[in-house]
Amino acid sequence: MSRQSNRTTDSKKMNSELFTLTYGALVTQLCKDYENDEEVNKQLDKILFSLFPSSRGYNIGVRLIEDFLARSSVGRCHDFRETADVIAKVAFKMYLGITPSVTNWSPAGDEFSLILESNPLVDFVELPDNHSTLVYSNLLCGVLRGALEMVQMAVDVRFAQDTLRGDNVTEIRMKFIKRIEENLPVGDE
Amino acid sequence: MSRQSNRTTDSKKMNSELFTLTYGALVTQLCKDYENDEEVNKQLDKILFSLFPSSRGYNIGVRLIEDFLARSSVGRCHDFRETADVIAKVAFKMYLGITPSVTNWSPAGDEFSLILESNPLVDFVELPDNHSTLVYSNLLCGVLRGALEMVQMAVDVRFAQDTLRGDNVTEIRMKFIKRIEENLPVGDE
Repeated sequence: MSRQSNRTTDSKKMNSELFTLTYGALVTQLCKDYENDEEVNKQLDKILFSLFPSSRGYNIGVRLIEDFLARSSVGRCHDFRETADVIAKVAFKMYLGITPSVTNWSPAGDEFSLILESNPLVDFVELPDNHSTLVYSNLLCGVLRGALEMVQMAVDVRFAQDTLRGDNVTEIRMKFIKRIEENLPVGDE
Repeated sequence: MSRQSNRTTDSKKMNSELFTLTYGALVTQLCKDYENDEEVNKQLDKILFSLFPSSRGYNIGVRLIEDFLARSSVGRCHDFRETADVIAKVAFKMYLGITPSVTNWSPAGDEFSLILESNPLVDFVELPDNHSTLVYSNLLCGVLRGALEMVQMAVDVRFAQDTLRGDNVTEIRMKFIKRIEENLPVGDE
C-alpha cells in the first residue's frame, strides 16, 4: 500500500527514539524465540531483506535501495572508496542521522571500517550477562549487505567493535568480495 | 547505556523508512509467535511499556515520557483539550513527523479522534487476507496510553478506522477515563 509514498522527502523525518525502542522490542522478541545469540544474530542480519516478499511482487529491500537512489540522487560509484563515502555521508546521514567516519583501509583498498561515535540503536540498551555474544545492532549489517547487493556488489559486513560490549566506539568492517554479474532478462538487451 | 544520550536533540532525527521496515519485522515476528491476531494486537499494545524493566531500574516508557517532557518543554495540561493538542501537534510531530488533526469531540469533551492522513508505520504494508483482524499499528495505542499514564491520566486508546482495512483515513479514538492519583512515597510530602 503506497498511499503514503507521495509524502515529500522532508516530511519523512522522525525522532529516532521510537525507532530505537521498537528495534529493542524486535531484538527482545527474537531472543525469546531463538535458543542462542548466534541464531538471533542471523535473524537480525537477514530480517529486513527476507521480509515482505510482498503482494507488490518484489522484496522490500529492493524498495529501500530504490528509494535511496531516487532520493539521494547519487550516481553509480566508480570504486569502493566512493561507495564507502556514499554509505557514510549520505546513507547513514539520511537513515540514522549520523555520519560515521571511514577509516582503517586495507592496503589493497578492498576493506574499510565505519566508525560510529554514537549508535542510535543502542540508546537505553545494556546487554544482559547471558547475551554476551549477541550482536545487538546486526540489522545494520544485513541492511548494508542487502542494499549493496542491489547495486551488484557482494560485500562482507560485520561488527568489529561495539560499545555495547565495552569498546570505545562501534566499528563496522566492510570487505569487498566481488561484483555481481547482472542477470539481464532474456531479450532485454 | 546512555553514552549516546548527550547527543543534541537536533541530531536525533532520522528517516522514517528504516523504522517502518523494522516495525514491520516486529509485527511479522509476533504473527509467527502468536496464534491469533487478537493476541498480536495485545502484544503490540503493551510491547514498549513492558520492555526493558532495565538495569537502570525503571521502565523505558518512563524514559520516553521524561524525554518528551524535557525536550518539548510543554507544561502540565489543564484539560483534555489541551492534552489532545499537545499529542497531535507536539508529540506526533516530534516522534513520527506528522501532525494528525484533532476532531470528533464528544459533547462532554472526554473523547476525541486523531485523524492521520498518512501513517508512517504502514508505508509498504498490505494486510494478508488471513490477518483481517490485525490492528497493525497498535503499538501507537500502547505508546499513547502508556505515556499518558505517566502524567496521571488513564485514557482508553483504540483504532476506529485504518487505511490498512480500506478506510480513507486512520482514526485513533481517545477516551478520558480518570485522573490517576499520585502515590507519593511515604514521607515525601
